[in-house]
Amino acid sequence: MDILGIGSATVDDLLFVPAFPQQDTKMEILRHERQGGGLCATALVAAARLGARVGFAGVLGHDEISRWVADDLAGEGIDVSQAVYREDAVPIHAHIIVDPSGSRTILYSVDGRIGADDELPSAEVIQSSRVLFIDDFGTSGNIRAARLARAAGIPIVADFELTDEPELLQQVDHLIVSACYAGRVTGTADPGLAARRLWHEQRAAVVVTCGDQGAWYADGEAPAHFQAAFRVEPVDTTGCGDVFHGAYAAALTWGLSLDERVRFASATAALKATQPGGRKGIPTRAAVEAFLMSGQ
Amino acid sequence: MDILGIGSATVDDLLFVPAFPQQDTKMEILRHERQGGGLCATALVAAARLGARVGFAGVLGHDEISRWVADDLAGEGIDVSQAVYREDAVPIHAHIIVDPSGSRTILYSVDGRIGADDELPSAEVIQSSRVLFIDDFGTSGNIRAARLARAAGIPIVADFELTDEPELLQQVDHLIVSACYAGRVTGTADPGLAARRLWHEQRAAVVVTCGDQGAWYADGEAPAHFQAAFRVEPVDTTGCGDVFHGAYAAALTWGLSLDERVRFASATAALKATQPGGRKGIPTRAAVEAFLMSGQ
Repeated sequence: MDILGIGSATVDDLLFVPAFPQQDTKMEILRHERQGGGLCATALVAAARLGARVGFAGVLGHDEISRWVADDLAGEGIDVSQAVYREDAVPIHAHIIVDPSGSRTILYSVDGRIGADDELPSAEVIQSSRVLFIDDFGTSGNIRAARLARAAGIPIVADFELTDEPELLQQVDHLIVSACYAGRVTGTADPGLAARRLWHEQRAAVVVTCGDQGAWYADGEAPAHFQAAFRVEPVDTTGCGDVFHGAYAAALTWGLSLDERVRFASATAALKATQPGGRKGIPTRAAVEAFLMSGQ
Repeated sequence: MDILGIGSATVDDLLFVPAFPQQDTKMEILRHERQGGGLCATALVAAARLGARVGFAGVLGHDEISRWVADDLAGEGIDVSQAVYREDAVPIHAHIIVDPSGSRTILYSVDGRIGADDELPSAEVIQSSRVLFIDDFGTSGNIRAARLARAAGIPIVADFELTDEPELLQQVDHLIVSACYAGRVTGTADPGLAARRLWHEQRAAVVVTCGDQGAWYADGEAPAHFQAAFRVEPVDTTGCGDVFHGAYAAALTWGLSLDERVRFASATAALKATQPGGRKGIPTRAAVEAFLMSGQ
């Protein structure tokens, strides 16, 4: 396996309505569409579409939503044979009302455990992958898996939005976070400075993503490096951050340099934004390379 | 089979929210509950809980919602072996936002065919049942099945909310409709008069239900008969009309008189209303009989 992900997978039921509903009324919706989401799952889908061999080993339950997630990931060519099934696990499930103004009204439920498990997958599974991908969900399981990966010299790529658990933050080799998160944990609104503050000697890289403002990244040299965002006509930026992570992880398995990885991930995220939906626009590796060659 | 139903089955996803959502916001829901609904399906569930041997032979698709419906009906002891699977069929699926004020904001989708099929179930299946139950959905299939039932002397019980197809209305032996529907097709707001106008020589009975106002019914005698509603503390009247239909059909298979059928169906619907949800409160036959014996 090139990339093993042990984080969150979620399900979004998008309800496209002709107008935002009034309370206590009845309305026929225009369209209902179920989409997969979640930091880890969307990153893994991106990596798989880009050609990486990807496995999902996060927690799932025995409910219909869990089955949908497993089928959805398998349909993307992701190996779900190491997914961990637990009685108390239920993916986050969101119902999202999308009205013509473009507004999204999100009703979500957290009904059970998600993310990394405390005991599985086995050390052998973790240590036979080339990259371990983790996110915010399942802190103790993430710490266990990160220790096992570290011990075997396997790089850890992380997408955090919430956690400030010191040991977990410490373990990550490739820390890729939003400017919002980076600002909160470092106390500075300057993303380049935040990247440098998050860097330490055991890390390979820190990337702070700032959407259409570009990305700052640090590798121990000062000042931080900068990658401008690619100019595209954005249609839907949902999931762009997750896709950036997946593309970065895929590029890492190909042996690209840090500059190349950030450039490749930025281009992948930009192309994704040109299509509606959180995953629809995720391009192939050939499409990203053609985009980069086109002189963008 | 005592009762064969060929009408609609639907799925309601109830989203219990702490307050009705504001547009473009994100809210954690309190609870998500999936319930089965549909005129025909809820009537069949009621009949099955009352002890009748029931089959469902309406149209289902190959989607997850259809699977859920089949599993749900089978879980009620309903024979779904004659359900008709079609590529273009999808049950009606509603998302219902339930807020603490009790208001229900319904977002529903009609994505494919539902109701009676044009070719199935076979004449043998229809003609080996003791009662045929139809609703509004699948007009040409309903007409086909009604002709087959008529030819074999099998009574047809119908629940209509929408259709005004003359041949279909003509074929029904036991026409049980709401005061709202009866008023629309007969042009009178008087439910007793509406019942008499809907009666004709080939019918066994017409019942016009008026919720907690009671039910008027006609059998060719003038004036129409009246059954007062049973006094209960209503908690949720969702599905009461459908339950009335199912109880009436079950009572028909037991050989009860029209007066007894309407009384039994009224009591069953009243007991259902004392519990939340469209089906939870559906009582057993013994519970209805105990309620009737208690001098209500």
